[in-house]
Amino acid sequence: MGSTPTPRSFSLHPQLVEDCHALGQLRFCHLLLHRNAAVPWFILVPQTEVIDLLDLPPVLRSKALDDATRVSRFIKQQLGYPKVNFAAIGNVVPQLHLHVIGRREGDPCWPAPVWGHLKDTASYTAEQIEKIRRGIEALS
Amino acid sequence: MGSTPTPRSFSLHPQLVEDCHALGQLRFCHLLLHRNAAVPWFILVPQTEVIDLLDLPPVLRSKALDDATRVSRFIKQQLGYPKVNFAAIGNVVPQLHLHVIGRREGDPCWPAPVWGHLKDTASYTAEQIEKIRRGIEALS
Repeated sequence: MGSTPTPRSFSLHPQLVEDCHALGQLRFCHLLLHRNAAVPWFILVPQTEVIDLLDLPPVLRSKALDDATRVSRFIKQQLGYPKVNFAAIGNVVPQLHLHVIGRREGDPCWPAPVWGHLKDTASYTAEQIEKIRRGIEALS
Repeated sequence: MGSTPTPRSFSLHPQLVEDCHALGQLRFCHLLLHRNAAVPWFILVPQTEVIDLLDLPPVLRSKALDDATRVSRFIKQQLGYPKVNFAAIGNVVPQLHLHVIGRREGDPCWPAPVWGHLKDTASYTAEQIEKIRRGIEALS
């Protein structure tokens, strides 16, 4: 992560910057970690101006899904979550972004989806964030 | 739709059968239409025993997304919705199923995602369902 230059014209939506820690760059997507540590909630932002996932050309769609799959493997293999929720919604923040969220029975909003249902909050330490960043980087 | 035989071992989860109208078979997925007509809410069920979308082998994942893209095109081009929400959640119904939902400003739960937020209900007539089925079939 961090080696692919970002096109000059590309910038993250301010709401995503406010809500998330920036972890770096995957092959096609910026990788963000939602600040709410109640569940492991990653947000991937593909470098494109397309708004909806299903409007991406298939090659780019596969690149985005490959990045999401890498994060999903990290959530399952390294964090030990058995289930991953995946979504591209974007009704509030129009910039295309993909939610990849580790879930398990008994987590703070199980079985509801997180959006609008996750009332608990928790924070990451800088050390935890760095450990996660390195863990995903190692899953090449 | 309707031409690809379903493997004998494959059956839809009873909750999906209860919640949806069955529209037929896309290339890889069964196509269902949620009975709540408040928003155009399609559910695609890939013929696989894999539980999470991001665990599908990339070739099958692309097939599932191609089917979802076809439904998204129908929602945008034929139903005139500008936005499509896409998600694979499955915390309640474990069988892999993909939500493809038409959204627009001012719809009954805009801008919230539908899950747990869509309070309005409406029903389709048999004629409306058949028109939708034929409309998607025509988008090959």
